Amino acid sequence: MIARLSVLLLFALGLRAQIFTLTRDQVMKYTAENPYDRFPDGRPKVPDELLEKVKGLSIEEVWAVLPGKGYRQQFAGPGWRIMHPEKKLVGRAVTLQFMPARPDLQKPSDPKANSSGPRIAQHQRFIDNLQPGDVAVVDLYGKIEGGTIVGDNLATAIWNASKTGLVVDGAIRDAEGIFPIGMPVYYRGVHPTPIDYSSVMVTGVNVPVKIGDATVMPGDIVFGDRGGLYFIPPQFVKEVVDKAEITHIHDEWTKMKLDTGKYKSSDIYPTPHDPALKKEYEEYLKKRLGK
Amino acid sequence: MIARLSVLLLFALGLRAQIFTLTRDQVMKYTAENPYDRFPDGRPKVPDELLEKVKGLSIEEVWAVLPGKGYRQQFAGPGWRIMHPEKKLVGRAVTLQFMPARPDLQKPSDPKANSSGPRIAQHQRFIDNLQPGDVAVVDLYGKIEGGTIVGDNLATAIWNASKTGLVVDGAIRDAEGIFPIGMPVYYRGVHPTPIDYSSVMVTGVNVPVKIGDATVMPGDIVFGDRGGLYFIPPQFVKEVVDKAEITHIHDEWTKMKLDTGKYKSSDIYPTPHDPALKKEYEEYLKKRLGK
Amino acid sequence: MIARLSVLLLFALGLRAQIFTLTRDQVMKYTAENPYDRFPDGRPKVPDELLEKVKGLSIEEVWAVLPGKGYRQQFAGPGWRIMHPEKKLVGRAVTLQFMPARPDLQKPSDPKANSSGPRIAQHQRFIDNLQPGDVAVVDLYGKIEGGTIVGDNLATAIWNASKTGLVVDGAIRDAEGIFPIGMPVYYRGVHPTPIDYSSVMVTGVNVPVKIGDATVMPGDIVFGDRGGLYFIPPQFVKEVVDKAEITHIHDEWTKMKLDTGKYKSSDIYPTPHDPALKKEYEEYLKKRLGK
Amino acid sequence: MIARLSVLLLFALGLRAQIFTLTRDQVMKYTAENPYDRFPDGRPKVPDELLEKVKGLSIEEVWAVLPGKGYRQQFAGPGWRIMHPEKKLVGRAVTLQFMPARPDLQKPSDPKANSSGPRIAQHQRFIDNLQPGDVAVVDLYGKIEGGTIVGDNLATAIWNASKTGLVVDGAIRDAEGIFPIGMPVYYRGVHPTPIDYSSVMVTGVNVPVKIGDATVMPGDIVFGDRGGLYFIPPQFVKEVVDKAEITHIHDEWTKMKLDTGKYKSSDIYPTPHDPALKKEYEEYLKKRLGK
Amino acid sequence: MIARLSVLLLFALGLRAQIFTLTRDQVMKYTAENPYDRFPDGRPKVPDELLEKVKGLSIEEVWAVLPGKGYRQQFAGPGWRIMHPEKKLVGRAVTLQFMPARPDLQKPSDPKANSSGPRIAQHQRFIDNLQPGDVAVVDLYGKIEGGTIVGDNLATAIWNASKTGLVVDGAIRDAEGIFPIGMPVYYRGVHPTPIDYSSVMVTGVNVPVKIGDATVMPGDIVFGDRGGLYFIPPQFVKEVVDKAEITHIHDEWTKMKLDTGKYKSSDIYPTPHDPALKKEYEEYLKKRLGK
Amino acid sequence: MIARLSVLLLFALGLRAQIFTLTRDQVMKYTAENPYDRFPDGRPKVPDELLEKVKGLSIEEVWAVLPGKGYRQQFAGPGWRIMHPEKKLVGRAVTLQFMPARPDLQKPSDPKANSSGPRIAQHQRFIDNLQPGDVAVVDLYGKIEGGTIVGDNLATAIWNASKTGLVVDGAIRDAEGIFPIGMPVYYRGVHPTPIDYSSVMVTGVNVPVKIGDATVMPGDIVFGDRGGLYFIPPQFVKEVVDKAEITHIHDEWTKMKLDTGKYKSSDIYPTPHDPALKKEYEEYLKKRLGK
Repeated sequence: MIARLSVLLLFALGLRAQIFTLTRDQVMKYTAENPYDRFPDGRPKVPDELLEKVKGLSIEEVWAVLPGKGYRQQFAGPGWRIMHPEKKLVGRAVTLQFMPARPDLQKPSDPKANSSGPRIAQHQRFIDNLQPGDVAVVDLYGKIEGGTIVGDNLATAIWNASKTGLVVDGAIRDAEGIFPIGMPVYYRGVHPTPIDYSSVMVTGVNVPVKIGDATVMPGDIVFGDRGGLYFIPPQFVKEVVDKAEITHIHDEWTKMKLDTGKYKSSDIYPTPHDPALKKEYEEYLKKRLGK
Repeated sequence: MIARLSVLLLFALGLRAQIFTLTRDQVMKYTAENPYDRFPDGRPKVPDELLEKVKGLSIEEVWAVLPGKGYRQQFAGPGWRIMHPEKKLVGRAVTLQFMPARPDLQKPSDPKANSSGPRIAQHQRFIDNLQPGDVAVVDLYGKIEGGTIVGDNLATAIWNASKTGLVVDGAIRDAEGIFPIGMPVYYRGVHPTPIDYSSVMVTGVNVPVKIGDATVMPGDIVFGDRGGLYFIPPQFVKEVVDKAEITHIHDEWTKMKLDTGKYKSSDIYPTPHDPALKKEYEEYLKKRLGK
Repeated sequence: MIARLSVLLLFALGLRAQIFTLTRDQVMKYTAENPYDRFPDGRPKVPDELLEKVKGLSIEEVWAVLPGKGYRQQFAGPGWRIMHPEKKLVGRAVTLQFMPARPDLQKPSDPKANSSGPRIAQHQRFIDNLQPGDVAVVDLYGKIEGGTIVGDNLATAIWNASKTGLVVDGAIRDAEGIFPIGMPVYYRGVHPTPIDYSSVMVTGVNVPVKIGDATVMPGDIVFGDRGGLYFIPPQFVKEVVDKAEITHIHDEWTKMKLDTGKYKSSDIYPTPHDPALKKEYEEYLKKRLGK
Repeated sequence: MIARLSVLLLFALGLRAQIFTLTRDQVMKYTAENPYDRFPDGRPKVPDELLEKVKGLSIEEVWAVLPGKGYRQQFAGPGWRIMHPEKKLVGRAVTLQFMPARPDLQKPSDPKANSSGPRIAQHQRFIDNLQPGDVAVVDLYGKIEGGTIVGDNLATAIWNASKTGLVVDGAIRDAEGIFPIGMPVYYRGVHPTPIDYSSVMVTGVNVPVKIGDATVMPGDIVFGDRGGLYFIPPQFVKEVVDKAEITHIHDEWTKMKLDTGKYKSSDIYPTPHDPALKKEYEEYLKKRLGK
Repeated sequence: MIARLSVLLLFALGLRAQIFTLTRDQVMKYTAENPYDRFPDGRPKVPDELLEKVKGLSIEEVWAVLPGKGYRQQFAGPGWRIMHPEKKLVGRAVTLQFMPARPDLQKPSDPKANSSGPRIAQHQRFIDNLQPGDVAVVDLYGKIEGGTIVGDNLATAIWNASKTGLVVDGAIRDAEGIFPIGMPVYYRGVHPTPIDYSSVMVTGVNVPVKIGDATVMPGDIVFGDRGGLYFIPPQFVKEVVDKAEITHIHDEWTKMKLDTGKYKSSDIYPTPHDPALKKEYEEYLKKRLGK
Repeated sequence: MIARLSVLLLFALGLRAQIFTLTRDQVMKYTAENPYDRFPDGRPKVPDELLEKVKGLSIEEVWAVLPGKGYRQQFAGPGWRIMHPEKKLVGRAVTLQFMPARPDLQKPSDPKANSSGPRIAQHQRFIDNLQPGDVAVVDLYGKIEGGTIVGDNLATAIWNASKTGLVVDGAIRDAEGIFPIGMPVYYRGVHPTPIDYSSVMVTGVNVPVKIGDATVMPGDIVFGDRGGLYFIPPQFVKEVVDKAEITHIHDEWTKMKLDTGKYKSSDIYPTPHDPALKKEYEEYLKKRLGK
């Protein structure tokens, strides 16, 4: 779709800056517990190897760690539509925040800024900054009409840049054109309108955003599957992955046993009662962990 | 399913006529801008060739034309369930309007009418009049229980007559039997009850009807895909199709460029800034249009 | 997922008994019209052969019998999510009822009960009692967070024990792990929390339960397809199946005729008007029934 | 509030005519059971004396008659906001129907029509035709923004013309200015926008309209109290009023007896069992009716 | 309103017994922590003097005690309509449970039962058993149409018997007639239908019932004000009342100080920081408690 | 109510600072069009005399100016509960923003900060800074349980400090205790829990906040009546007030004329057609303005 933005509108779009920002120092202060490297803007960079392991998780394994650490609100909650639920969504959050538009907050911040160069809409500039492994996480406060962050062209741009997917607490347009890209998208609705900068305005880039029931920080690990959406602070990713490995083996063994048809669930789940079974499980666990 | 309509009920059904009607002259007056042929009852007949081209559209390409013409309410809005979203729904609207039933509006209009011949329920008579390329568009005001316009038998009849699909702002029954027909259906819910003429009554055939957020006229082009439902007045179909051709080429080129991985989205979208790229696109467009 | 239940909680879970119970005599009194054998606890046992025939039904064929008998509320109503709608869910209901938890109703009923043996959570004990052909029907009053009756391990246990499926007026967790089991599940939502016995408590096993708009009795036949969920009291199963056979033949003939493209729906549906067609249908019916 | 309608818009408003109309003959056909006089346009005119008696009814007394006559859908259902619930709304319905606007249905019907005279918006012309005892019943299909039938000026006009009240399945504006008029209003919401003829269009005046769950005919008696809204066809008004008189006496006696504190409700309600009490009631009834 | 129950229906009503019951022993077991007397059926009887004090509470003072005891679900939650919110509702719960009706659970339990005496509908018999200070707490699972526990006559009976009020997770009818009684009623909706025993059936009397988000036991203290509905188990009533006394004095003093205009809220709330103020408060508290 | 905050929690509360802040310069930049004085922190200070005039407005008179200036989203939209709708809410916005809590964003920003002085919860500190004429505008993103900004004590503090009222897109507690203060409150729900800093966290003070459908800036004029809530940027207050004066006179004259019973609404509204009437109105207007 060719976006039909009036020259006047592009003017405004190209010149204003977001209201809420975090300096590199602020990002580092608020993500002080991040044990990994960072991007130049301070955003935590959970290593690629760990991201690979996150792809093997299920939502429940994230839950198994986070609430116990006092993070009871990192699950995005109900009401999401999922495009391509058969694929997991995993990556590092970059965030974009919108609020209802009002002209006085959309004025140019620098009178000279418009003197040269093309005008780029703010959400497009955000998309152009995506790195491989990033997940665009957009707070459009559930807006559907006029709250459509991408159509098929910009969705293609997101996919090519990030190879991950998209989370928008708002809408998409051109669902028919986005579907064949094969990218997982978590969204609230579909509408034929393009994003409408007279209805919505960008208020922050890479700031904390509210997505459903959760607050997401730039650098959080986004994890989505059929069971919903989770945002994992960097400091917990390793523990989640490690615990999950044991759970995987436990569930593998449990289902293997149940599939024999010889046991009631309570014989072996949550843990086997019979000492012989208990031993069998422990040996199985040791062997599998030893790999 | 054999509909279990009491003799008494069939009696009533067979004899009453709808309350709201449009004469051929009225249809022509209200669709005066239709540039095409008409059916005998005055309903605009957008040509088959154009319908074929409509199948290549996306919802956004319809949006690109209609609001600019002052038609801001032709999109059916949210809350629809789609059976077979992988198929596009395209055809000419024929409309049926229901309201909550009251016996004084269901009385026979002509005392002699019941003297001979079988009694045919009004919605079935409507279905029996469908032509190839027609889409049955039914306003059942969102009613689910007792608001089930078809089960598998009448759905088969619709499919055989129209080879298009069905839009019902109400319910269907026998979803399990309708699914294998393979016909796209836009509906609000499913219920095991057959349509209940003591709860609903036909008030109009081929009159303007409200479907979701839109008013649909007989002869409008129905267009449905994963992105929702649109009703295009005949006078705009050609312009929509023509504009879409350019958009298709534009999007084809844009995605081709994005897929090279060499560009940021803003280099080429909505339009390329670099003069060389601009020229490349214009030549591509010319060549493709020239085909 | 390894459920993380504290020792303290398991203690409570293991010892308390449900509040509402029906003795074998009560079950027999309330299901006095059951014409078939019974399980040891009095629950009606519709024969396997009949269950096989139920698999050929559609929701509408159940509706065709039940309301006429005064059973107008056996359809579970709207708002269900279906995992694996392409498979029919058919089996004998066993029921489990929850209410919001309060500690005074969760106290041990027998001070000696905790002296030995492993503690088994009540819902797990319920699952361990499932027989082949049973369908677990769980009233969790629509609760999502903390109202998750199974994850992938216990779902595997249900599948292995019953080979049918699950109905929960509440939630499941680990949808990603349950999906590959291939079992039809009717549920309200998904949440990463395990079932939370400080929020919900078991109040009855094999008692009447409210599931959506219906009251379900143990021994009712559960029937689910794309059209929704129905609960058939045992005394009507045979009549439903017998009537459906004729409906199947009727619909087969109707669609065959419609597919010829020679008839309007009203020529043959609900019944053919033309005497020759009428005769043709009757002979077809006789022949097919005679098989 | 001064409505700010552009000249262009007024032009359109003033000239187009509604799409759905009923001739005097049609009104008489569809209200053939009306036993009373009629207005010049055919609308039934239930006599003023009867209207006075209707003011003494309660919603339940209307229910006591209508469903038994096959009119099961004359209650407007849930979701209404009531301004001044302490006053009963009673009067004869005049109806106005809106649908989502589209320009081709809003074109002038007569090219000469705009040659002279002031342009009057259609809803205002409707209001100007109200008679004493009329109740404006407006179908704005639940629309809130842009679906505001009156502000304080036109609400004053309604009150002065009808001395009854207003029913709008849509919105009002200027609730603060309407409140002091003291008129009962049944509505769905409040919005500061004036009615927006680029969003909504008049499609019928004095035709059947859907208001909540009911179909309302011009001439129906509107009855509203804290218990909701009912639309009584003229042919049943007398029976409702007559039956209610007995119910009033019955309830008066029942409550009088209950207030003595000497009886359980089942001693006297629904009817007294004790022969002496029965006789007492019958004498009370006779005496009171004799008045 | 005279209830129009057919003889046939009354027959069924009069003879069946509820399915769920608790014996006196069971009631005593499940309310073992009740420190007060009991009614003959075992229901706890919090003393009248204590009930008087409960009338001085606010919802928040109940909250201040219950969750800390592990009773986190005794608040009825959102979505209630309140008639007469200006009056507090306080009393001892008696409970009535309904489920969707099915005829096989409504059959007479004793073939001789119908040989003599008047038939009394089950909900009326329940009302006739109300004692002064009781609050009828009815689980009609949110049903509106056909789920109307009382009209004006039975509401009068409730008021005369209990002098408290009514809680129904369902509907009332004749709101216009109930309003002048002046009794606080917590309910979900209003409908003109009387209670419909072909849609709903009584399943339990004085058993645990689910009301909104809470489980209510017979003998719980019902507490309702503008802030919502709470159900206090008898064992906590005294502690709630005692703590509230201090809170009352604290709030009295806090507001008195704030009203002087000399303090910021943080100077004195939640507790004064200044030693002199602290002392002043403590002396005030002592004096007021000493009264 | 005495808030029961653990020492641990108070520690966190007292030391952390909000994430989003605007410096004085930023406030001035974003409110550059403010024609009036400012508070020391840069917040625009619309003069008291003008505030007095705003009290005479109606919601519609605000609408009459703002959308025409491109401010189409300053109306807070539907779904608000209003305490004391009989009083207008008028004042200067001060804003407070919450998001779902996560511990890493709640850490102390300055390790020395906790060395002395009492700890004050952030929302209380916000309340303590209120000036006469301020309106506390709190974004609690619709949260009810745990999202209760005030009970009766802090509501008293707000009232004493501001003498205006409160807007919270979230909840209040102790509605029973707040009601008698007599202060207008716009809120979403009521819950007995106090505000829960393990569920919600302050993210900004005097930053732009989203309240319903609107973005509110510190210094906006809050205007609430029965018709809803509006937020007027300072630069438009005078124009709104001036236009409203004419509207008041217009409406006064219109209603006076309508009350004579001599005119149809279209004779005089929106403007009189008759030249004599027109002149009469103009003279009336001139005279009234001249006062």
